[in-house]
Amino acid sequence: MSETKREKLGEETLSTITGGTGAAVVESLKDIAPDLADWIISFSYGDVMSRPGLDKRSRQFSTIAALTAMGTAAPQLKVHIHGALNVGCTPSEIIEVILQMSVYAGFPAAINGLNIAREVFRERGVTVGT
Amino acid sequence: MSETKREKLGEETLSTITGGTGAAVVESLKDIAPDLADWIISFSYGDVMSRPGLDKRSRQFSTIAALTAMGTAAPQLKVHIHGALNVGCTPSEIIEVILQMSVYAGFPAAINGLNIAREVFRERGVTVGT
Amino acid sequence: MSETKREKLGEETLSTITGGTGAAVVESLKDIAPDLADWIISFSYGDVMSRPGLDKRSRQFSTIAALTAMGTAAPQLKVHIHGALNVGCTPSEIIEVILQMSVYAGFPAAINGLNIAREVFRERGVTVGT
Amino acid sequence: MSETKREKLGEETLSTITGGTGAAVVESLKDIAPDLADWIISFSYGDVMSRPGLDKRSRQFSTIAALTAMGTAAPQLKVHIHGALNVGCTPSEIIEVILQMSVYAGFPAAINGLNIAREVFRERGVTVGT
Amino acid sequence: MSETKREKLGEETLSTITGGTGAAVVESLKDIAPDLADWIISFSYGDVMSRPGLDKRSRQFSTIAALTAMGTAAPQLKVHIHGALNVGCTPSEIIEVILQMSVYAGFPAAINGLNIAREVFRERGVTVGT
Amino acid sequence: MSETKREKLGEETLSTITGGTGAAVVESLKDIAPDLADWIISFSYGDVMSRPGLDKRSRQFSTIAALTAMGTAAPQLKVHIHGALNVGCTPSEIIEVILQMSVYAGFPAAINGLNIAREVFRERGVTVGT
Repeated sequence: MSETKREKLGEETLSTITGGTGAAVVESLKDIAPDLADWIISFSYGDVMSRPGLDKRSRQFSTIAALTAMGTAAPQLKVHIHGALNVGCTPSEIIEVILQMSVYAGFPAAINGLNIAREVFRERGVTVGT
Repeated sequence: MSETKREKLGEETLSTITGGTGAAVVESLKDIAPDLADWIISFSYGDVMSRPGLDKRSRQFSTIAALTAMGTAAPQLKVHIHGALNVGCTPSEIIEVILQMSVYAGFPAAINGLNIAREVFRERGVTVGT
Repeated sequence: MSETKREKLGEETLSTITGGTGAAVVESLKDIAPDLADWIISFSYGDVMSRPGLDKRSRQFSTIAALTAMGTAAPQLKVHIHGALNVGCTPSEIIEVILQMSVYAGFPAAINGLNIAREVFRERGVTVGT
Repeated sequence: MSETKREKLGEETLSTITGGTGAAVVESLKDIAPDLADWIISFSYGDVMSRPGLDKRSRQFSTIAALTAMGTAAPQLKVHIHGALNVGCTPSEIIEVILQMSVYAGFPAAINGLNIAREVFRERGVTVGT
Repeated sequence: MSETKREKLGEETLSTITGGTGAAVVESLKDIAPDLADWIISFSYGDVMSRPGLDKRSRQFSTIAALTAMGTAAPQLKVHIHGALNVGCTPSEIIEVILQMSVYAGFPAAINGLNIAREVFRERGVTVGT
Repeated sequence: MSETKREKLGEETLSTITGGTGAAVVESLKDIAPDLADWIISFSYGDVMSRPGLDKRSRQFSTIAALTAMGTAAPQLKVHIHGALNVGCTPSEIIEVILQMSVYAGFPAAINGLNIAREVFRERGVTVGT
């Protein structure tokens, strides 16, 4: 896959998941780590998240599960709960994934994840169960 | 939900996911922590993993993502890769979830998760891509 | 143990440790994850924290140690430092548990835990050594 | 506190908890990191674990809780389960601490901790409940 | 090494790395955990960070790498990015260490570490690349 | 940077650090995750570890610090201790980095890291202090 293709694919997937643009990622990092913007676009979204072998909903469930369980990535969990809603996951499915983490990573991880989900739902005016 | 119902539901879901029985869980823990067997069956599988709001495939993807990212639960990751295959996830979908963790939890987490998946696939004689 | 008994036992232990009520837990989660309130009351406090095999002080020391070492559960650590004081642990004993984590989880974990303890002590107007 | 006093105190506490000697710690590390032996004896056991403000049983419960929750320190968890038995914790109390971690750090952490406890109990020929 | 020497050496290294004084550390902890101030000065900075076997720049790179990867020690990471600048690491070298963590601990760890570095650089008025 | 250049650069750096070849990485993953081999070569070693802004010794110290602190990546820590020796770090410098983790991630992390270093040193017949 050529560099141009990786970047183009990454920008499309980034846009589908986050609703943002590659240009905004570049802008946000140009003062301190411009190459990280390229890695996010071309590697994370281009090489990995664009892969056809798993549907976008399952990818977002997986990311939400991991970040909730790790408990060290609140800003990224917020981005990916938005992303899950953007690719068609329902609020109640997202809650299910987070609740499930109480079994695998403990209740504090699940509760902290839920509080982040609540923020996202409020920002978007969505309610669980609808 | 009554205790009997929680236990019954948990045993069904445990059996669907792991292929094992509640009796085997009870047997394996009776020497040291018999109540843990009850919690695994009634809480983890009965209250949580049996919930109708998320399909079983998505639940297994979420568990595999979390355990791969955490990197501290190799035996349980092995059980849940078996479980993912048992509920209809394909080997290549499982690989995708694990590979995706390279972005969120780093390459060592993904590589160690892959090695566990390889063990499971070998035990079952399945190959990726089929 | 029947559902009613689990819930009743859980509410008692929740009240003893946190000083709060099951009704408040239910209220705080009813918009987003009502079943989690049930799990917290019936499983965490009813099945686990109510067990007679370990005294309540030792249970709180254990929770404080774990949450300090994990470093990912500041809100819950705060709740359980309050809880430790509620069940008769002294401020200086709580400090000892947190300080001990410098050996097992590193100085940053211990220092961050101490800062949370200081907040709790200030809220309650208690001082270490008294 | 003088160096000699720290070391002497550390050796006593090390012996009480682990049943081993400072000389054995020194011997085990002299090829690769002799100063670490000094830190273990004088800092971990001398400065920290010898402190009078918390009883030795509570210190061992705290260490077992932390190491079970972290899930990255199996050899040290084994040492400290032995240590807990050495200072008068009962097998069933140790099991309680480990089981409690299912709430705070997830079921895999608790199950992996239990398996280490089972090893220790077998080596010593003790059974839970006695 | 005598207690006095450990303390003196620790105070010197603490001052070199953080620009602060042992007296300030003592003052900040005297209300809640005065002995922790001694451990920070005599053990962390005196016994460990003062050792001659590794240059101060490499020690700061190592600490920044670890704290970025762990993701649970934001205040300490901030202190040690200041410390790295104080002992002659350049802003761009610090960024390199943090970016490298995307490979070993995942992109969220690296991004969160970068945001802390950006805060430090702004406080000091330094810019990357200069 | 073109795909071909990323791959070429990655193979060179991989060879310098690990002493292995890209072909061997490809071979080891072709059954289960062939694209991961590409990511390891082109992203981890090509995009990240080849960057000129930080010397190779500092990169290896940083990786060893992170993996020791995380405690979840024993096989990768082993690879990178070999890598550190391959790029000119001395055994005693590597030990210093690992020992330093006792302050930031706790004694169990440092002790477990040391045991991995000891294995590597024995395999290569090197001794600390030489």
